[in-house]
Amino acid sequence: MNIEIKSRTEKDLLGFKEVPFHCYYGVQTLRALENFNLSPNKLSHFPIFIKALAMVKSACAVSNFKLNKLEENKYNAIQHACQQLMNDLYHDQFPIDMIQGGAGTSTNMNANEVIANIGLEYMGHAKGEYKYLHPNNDVNMSQSTNDVYPTAIKVGLLFSLDQLNTPFQSLIDSFRAKSEEFAHILKMGRTQLQDAVPMTLGQEFGAFANTLQNDLNMLYSIMPNALSVVNLAGTAIGTGINTEVEYRLHAIEALSQITQKNISSSPDLIEATSDMGDFVLLSGFLKRTATKLAKIANDLRLLSSGPRAGLNEIHLEPRQPGSSIMPGKVNPVIPEAMNLACYQIIANDLAITLSAEAGQLQLNAMEPLIAFKLFESIDLLGKAMRMFQLKCIENVVANAEHCQHLVDNSIGIITVLNPYLGYETTTRIAKEANESGQSILALIKAENLLSDEVLADVLSVQNMVHPKQST
Amino acid sequence: MNIEIKSRTEKDLLGFKEVPFHCYYGVQTLRALENFNLSPNKLSHFPIFIKALAMVKSACAVSNFKLNKLEENKYNAIQHACQQLMNDLYHDQFPIDMIQGGAGTSTNMNANEVIANIGLEYMGHAKGEYKYLHPNNDVNMSQSTNDVYPTAIKVGLLFSLDQLNTPFQSLIDSFRAKSEEFAHILKMGRTQLQDAVPMTLGQEFGAFANTLQNDLNMLYSIMPNALSVVNLAGTAIGTGINTEVEYRLHAIEALSQITQKNISSSPDLIEATSDMGDFVLLSGFLKRTATKLAKIANDLRLLSSGPRAGLNEIHLEPRQPGSSIMPGKVNPVIPEAMNLACYQIIANDLAITLSAEAGQLQLNAMEPLIAFKLFESIDLLGKAMRMFQLKCIENVVANAEHCQHLVDNSIGIITVLNPYLGYETTTRIAKEANESGQSILALIKAENLLSDEVLADVLSVQNMVHPKQST
Amino acid sequence: MNIEIKSRTEKDLLGFKEVPFHCYYGVQTLRALENFNLSPNKLSHFPIFIKALAMVKSACAVSNFKLNKLEENKYNAIQHACQQLMNDLYHDQFPIDMIQGGAGTSTNMNANEVIANIGLEYMGHAKGEYKYLHPNNDVNMSQSTNDVYPTAIKVGLLFSLDQLNTPFQSLIDSFRAKSEEFAHILKMGRTQLQDAVPMTLGQEFGAFANTLQNDLNMLYSIMPNALSVVNLAGTAIGTGINTEVEYRLHAIEALSQITQKNISSSPDLIEATSDMGDFVLLSGFLKRTATKLAKIANDLRLLSSGPRAGLNEIHLEPRQPGSSIMPGKVNPVIPEAMNLACYQIIANDLAITLSAEAGQLQLNAMEPLIAFKLFESIDLLGKAMRMFQLKCIENVVANAEHCQHLVDNSIGIITVLNPYLGYETTTRIAKEANESGQSILALIKAENLLSDEVLADVLSVQNMVHPKQST
Amino acid sequence: MNIEIKSRTEKDLLGFKEVPFHCYYGVQTLRALENFNLSPNKLSHFPIFIKALAMVKSACAVSNFKLNKLEENKYNAIQHACQQLMNDLYHDQFPIDMIQGGAGTSTNMNANEVIANIGLEYMGHAKGEYKYLHPNNDVNMSQSTNDVYPTAIKVGLLFSLDQLNTPFQSLIDSFRAKSEEFAHILKMGRTQLQDAVPMTLGQEFGAFANTLQNDLNMLYSIMPNALSVVNLAGTAIGTGINTEVEYRLHAIEALSQITQKNISSSPDLIEATSDMGDFVLLSGFLKRTATKLAKIANDLRLLSSGPRAGLNEIHLEPRQPGSSIMPGKVNPVIPEAMNLACYQIIANDLAITLSAEAGQLQLNAMEPLIAFKLFESIDLLGKAMRMFQLKCIENVVANAEHCQHLVDNSIGIITVLNPYLGYETTTRIAKEANESGQSILALIKAENLLSDEVLADVLSVQNMVHPKQST
Repeated sequence: MNIEIKSRTEKDLLGFKEVPFHCYYGVQTLRALENFNLSPNKLSHFPIFIKALAMVKSACAVSNFKLNKLEENKYNAIQHACQQLMNDLYHDQFPIDMIQGGAGTSTNMNANEVIANIGLEYMGHAKGEYKYLHPNNDVNMSQSTNDVYPTAIKVGLLFSLDQLNTPFQSLIDSFRAKSEEFAHILKMGRTQLQDAVPMTLGQEFGAFANTLQNDLNMLYSIMPNALSVVNLAGTAIGTGINTEVEYRLHAIEALSQITQKNISSSPDLIEATSDMGDFVLLSGFLKRTATKLAKIANDLRLLSSGPRAGLNEIHLEPRQPGSSIMPGKVNPVIPEAMNLACYQIIANDLAITLSAEAGQLQLNAMEPLIAFKLFESIDLLGKAMRMFQLKCIENVVANAEHCQHLVDNSIGIITVLNPYLGYETTTRIAKEANESGQSILALIKAENLLSDEVLADVLSVQNMVHPKQST
Repeated sequence: MNIEIKSRTEKDLLGFKEVPFHCYYGVQTLRALENFNLSPNKLSHFPIFIKALAMVKSACAVSNFKLNKLEENKYNAIQHACQQLMNDLYHDQFPIDMIQGGAGTSTNMNANEVIANIGLEYMGHAKGEYKYLHPNNDVNMSQSTNDVYPTAIKVGLLFSLDQLNTPFQSLIDSFRAKSEEFAHILKMGRTQLQDAVPMTLGQEFGAFANTLQNDLNMLYSIMPNALSVVNLAGTAIGTGINTEVEYRLHAIEALSQITQKNISSSPDLIEATSDMGDFVLLSGFLKRTATKLAKIANDLRLLSSGPRAGLNEIHLEPRQPGSSIMPGKVNPVIPEAMNLACYQIIANDLAITLSAEAGQLQLNAMEPLIAFKLFESIDLLGKAMRMFQLKCIENVVANAEHCQHLVDNSIGIITVLNPYLGYETTTRIAKEANESGQSILALIKAENLLSDEVLADVLSVQNMVHPKQST
Repeated sequence: MNIEIKSRTEKDLLGFKEVPFHCYYGVQTLRALENFNLSPNKLSHFPIFIKALAMVKSACAVSNFKLNKLEENKYNAIQHACQQLMNDLYHDQFPIDMIQGGAGTSTNMNANEVIANIGLEYMGHAKGEYKYLHPNNDVNMSQSTNDVYPTAIKVGLLFSLDQLNTPFQSLIDSFRAKSEEFAHILKMGRTQLQDAVPMTLGQEFGAFANTLQNDLNMLYSIMPNALSVVNLAGTAIGTGINTEVEYRLHAIEALSQITQKNISSSPDLIEATSDMGDFVLLSGFLKRTATKLAKIANDLRLLSSGPRAGLNEIHLEPRQPGSSIMPGKVNPVIPEAMNLACYQIIANDLAITLSAEAGQLQLNAMEPLIAFKLFESIDLLGKAMRMFQLKCIENVVANAEHCQHLVDNSIGIITVLNPYLGYETTTRIAKEANESGQSILALIKAENLLSDEVLADVLSVQNMVHPKQST
Repeated sequence: MNIEIKSRTEKDLLGFKEVPFHCYYGVQTLRALENFNLSPNKLSHFPIFIKALAMVKSACAVSNFKLNKLEENKYNAIQHACQQLMNDLYHDQFPIDMIQGGAGTSTNMNANEVIANIGLEYMGHAKGEYKYLHPNNDVNMSQSTNDVYPTAIKVGLLFSLDQLNTPFQSLIDSFRAKSEEFAHILKMGRTQLQDAVPMTLGQEFGAFANTLQNDLNMLYSIMPNALSVVNLAGTAIGTGINTEVEYRLHAIEALSQITQKNISSSPDLIEATSDMGDFVLLSGFLKRTATKLAKIANDLRLLSSGPRAGLNEIHLEPRQPGSSIMPGKVNPVIPEAMNLACYQIIANDLAITLSAEAGQLQLNAMEPLIAFKLFESIDLLGKAMRMFQLKCIENVVANAEHCQHLVDNSIGIITVLNPYLGYETTTRIAKEANESGQSILALIKAENLLSDEVLADVLSVQNMVHPKQST
């Protein structure tokens, strides 16, 4: 048998290496593959990030071309290659682990090599003939990992946030719709898990909608602006060494055009090179939303507990059998999965915090973990929100009768009778109810303390769940 | 001997209790003291919080008075008492542990009782004669812990942020002044702890100033607004049960006037009652600043390492002897203490996250820990910033000569010679320098590769630490 | 008026300073007071730690005396002073902030100075006459902060664990007693908050006892040994510079005798000087117990929820009124406070982790935060456990009737009828029960599916809550 | 064209569903796939866990067979199927997301379905003919997810720990070998990043070996025992409902035999069903090791910093080019990747803590995240350790000359001269050295303070880095 595995020889600072000929990536990507084999999470799992890298590379090429640093045929080849990546092609050529040393150099070089080789073929050359289009000299011209990589992360996050918007708002809308559907279902409010005073189920779901809407509004009013300020053109440490003054302006302008985002340059590129503050802030927002969603998921699990020995105020659509041993048992699996997702996002925030704090002097070498965890968190959050909406919230059914029964049977409603019967009487009745197990209503009626008419008015939904109109 | 400890008898739901007569607090505060003896951190350690509580109580009394619910003499007594607390008096009457169950009820009742008893004395009555001014019926009129407590936390945090502003800005200014002082000191930049390319020490300190300024600006552009939206008048669960519609308007207006802050009412009081989102957000901002300060402290410790076997680029003013066994050793104790403070603040963020996620249904019973940790974090941050500024940053001295020596001796400066000598030559020289231990300059001169004039120009501070002016 | 504040002049590396004459601490403690004013948590709040420091100092003096390095009169003076500290005297002379830079040097010098001055008075000299007994030369002889400080932390933690033992075991015993008291109360078990199958309330409380007993057993089988291995005699970096070989042996032997603990020397003093692993491990144990206690507190709050619109299976003794607005409301304030304590302990674990990771080369400069947080966590845990036991667990009352009612009314009990009626029949009945709202028992009886006798046997507590005896 | 996708119809509580005929999994796995599409991490990525599940299923079948509950032909089919899974076959049939609701039910049912269908084919039936071998009735006989799932996690972790052992010990051995290689290289020790006293590079690397060996020893002395205690046979909530007393004994015995581990039964199956304590403990151990490794990686990055403007005491083998813009720059990418791995593991510990705390009543619904994160952490730790050893530690080279130069040039060595020259003289010389920049040795020699002979003896490696032999 005569199997021939074709390869080409590439060279870097450390020496020569055989690269399989079909690979668009080159020697430095191969080194990273050998060095980092730590997790199942690869660059190729994050297409948004690859596309963002291509956009940044494309913008730099525009700037270099305008300044007559880059020849036209090379420029065209680079643009073609970047466009292919933006079109979701060649993403399998990004096999490197997200957990990597080198502050993103391997990721940047992976992009440089793939773009060079796509470009070379476009120019009619073979992969690896770097004298015609060089990964470093041409594709990476006027760039350093230290400005390109953080810029690409920010651009990628901007698009990730765009993707998150729809599931986020849809989930809120779904809570809002339920809020209206449940507007007239009276139920007991609970504080510290103890019976408090009545409210409507609509108010409860409305609060879920509003608390998430606050998050969405704040997230999108702050983060897109913060993430649009980049350190591109700072090169190695932010001093812009080996660039010309005009390079920055052209690169930023081109990046704005390519991304259709309002990208601007950081006023202090040195600060911007090592600072992870925007990432910590974004993670803080995601964590805030995660704590809210976890609380909401917890609430839904509480409200749907039972059916007989729990609160049983709402019914969640069965999504899968809940037990192999207990006939008919169904569990709240969707809110549970939402809880897990939230805990993952909260834990990711710690990974990001640890990484941010570990920056040293002019760079943060832990940036790859920050990028990984942010993209993971946003992706997970979006998917979990969509799951939550479609497989849970939209199908929540109120057990209206049981809700009403708990109100009628509660001691807490005595609170609204205070102004009519006085504190002493209500306390006596509350105590009696508690000891005898009877309902407040029954006791009131037995003692004929209020006419049915007055009682009906006082206990109307309107009067129990809103401030009183002054008289 | 015949010692008589005078006391008065008070009563609550659980029965009677003897209260030492000199105490302005009453039976419910006593119960809390018995129940919660967990930490050395008491309400009285947080005067801003006590004053905020008094402001809220005062505002509620105004509203009740306007609606003719509260008689004038009671109103005057309450106002007098609240004013005393705002004047920093009677704070020792708040002995309850910050770590308390009950979602703040004990804190609220502590305030109600102290205000009632100060008021009673003002009215000419004895402490405990609650028939003339009642902690619940009068001081707490139209209120629930569940609206008063979170509102007071927010008001307290607004004032805490006011206090933080000065040390925060002063620290930044101090970095900025050093940035100007060090504007002409050339030094090696380092990425991933490896020698990179030159920069000025002024640029390095300027980045510290700028990264903190970003935080200050964002913190104060967002949080005061967020914290000014309160759930006052929501009472028990946000439905405003047992209040009149106008009560809310008057209370908010009064609170704005008393605090001289632009307080507004949350559009969804039910959401606002249980939601901890603003606190999580604030803690996220504090954590972000803490990670930045920790990174800066780490950098200062690195830059001042040595004096002989370290980087030794800057000199920190000795603050205390560093060793009993090693003569002359001085340690960077102020940046170290800053690190500790930052780790405390980051850990507090976790306590707040855990507490926020633990909310259930209409209330978050963990709110007391959230309040405790936020007040602690802001206070600690302010004190640590002032310490950092006055005892470290202001007195940093540059070891300019050594900085210059490291640049002259570095291989990294070869980078700027690339455009003049070409990549092949520079690589050969870099390699030679690395192996022989000689300086790049010496090698260039030995080979007569560039005239002294050109070399001086290329290696000028201006050309090394900024983009090139195009020619 | 003629007020004279007497002071003495002391001197250190940085110069001269006036020390108020009544102070037993000296110039270096004063410097630390000036440098670190960050938190309300002072050394004096942790008497166990001060006593541990005194024990270590005492042991070192013994060793120095045996090796003829320390004169007898100085030795006696040091021993006297250390004994005073062990007797809880002079603790107010330790005013330094727990949040301090310098890796513990200030704490060590505080001890050296206080011991020297107590010793000086014992010798008949005035405070400050260090030529007769010197804080460094005599009290700190053969020592460095870097070996004395971690050793004292470990000794202090050993005693802290001793103190924790009783409240820990008492809490377990209390759960165990309740387990026996509730052994015959049948109730519904719940998984994922959904009704599952029956169990006894005794089994539930027994599980609380057992899960905590596991923790106690493991904690005390591992940590005392780990904490007993110290780096004393390693001096500055673990090489034992400026000590003699025998010094270590004598010091360890003396420390064992003084502490009545089996103290031993680390086999690698260099490793032991910078390593924080034992502290991370201890914090991990405390965190594990905190997560268990938080889960138990959550369960108790769930089980006591209601009284009408919750699970209401148990009744917690009212500890304080729960609301000013809702008559008769009582909240589970003790389990809530337990939750807060647990969250604090979990957050402390993060502070400790951050600090441990921040060690550099031969020392960990963040050790003071580790010490602070560990002592705080153990103290808090002990106090919270005692509170939990005395003010909650001991007084839990079962609502046996309601528990039984929920079982009788449950659909889950159908599970035990599977072997008698077959899966198809039970599924049909379960479905019918769910739709009609009727009880399983009622349906079985209506259809005459099983004789009352058989039914009683099947549904006996024994058969429902244990594996079947094989037949 | 006429494409026919063959499928079979399966049914569960929720109704009918078409399952592609080639799938060995069935309707419940399909439901889980539809419900949970949250992350790229699937069950199939964790082969050890799948094999552990198969072992548990196999053991239960043995027990059922022994008790005559399971017919021989079904028993044989189940054993065959489990053996296939143990042989790493059919793992692609486990496509479910690791982030799943339902407390592991989907994972358990996935195993039940795959085993049933492999078994059916073995029996000569078609997939889906469950009347001959039923996923629930036969494969899951006497089992509940709530006992099988945690048991399988523990068994899987036992095997994971076995796999971790070799890279863990190899890394330690590698540090130990370097410790011996570097035994005679004198270098400066540093505390708080300030020059302290000399030590050998061998001592430094020896400390790395010892601190990790402590972790390995403790991990393997505690966790295998803890993880060997399982809740198998507790079924739904730990009461063992619907099992016979003997079932447990046979199942545990069989599991011990199959796993070749000493598996035992928890003394309290109710406690064991909901308790996550062993997982929290294991994660705590992993986190402890991660903090140590992060500290070691930080140290190696510090020690190899430079080459000109850093410490430069060791040289790490170049693994990949470090910069596209700076010629010759090489970065410590392997220690950096180790740092990232450690931060991931520390963050996973938080996810596990959050999940553990969220358990409620008789079960912890968050167990799937705990399992996911533990398997991930162990896998990542093992891979990172192997990378660290092979690609970094084994090839560390000491810059012995520079190390010696730093010692000779240091002020810290004055410490060893104290006993010879007295504190006053040494302090004067130290000060002179500091101000003039001269070396201590030069000053001593210039003043002729000690003979060359004595000086050589005092400054011998032996005398500087060990306690003195007493004379």
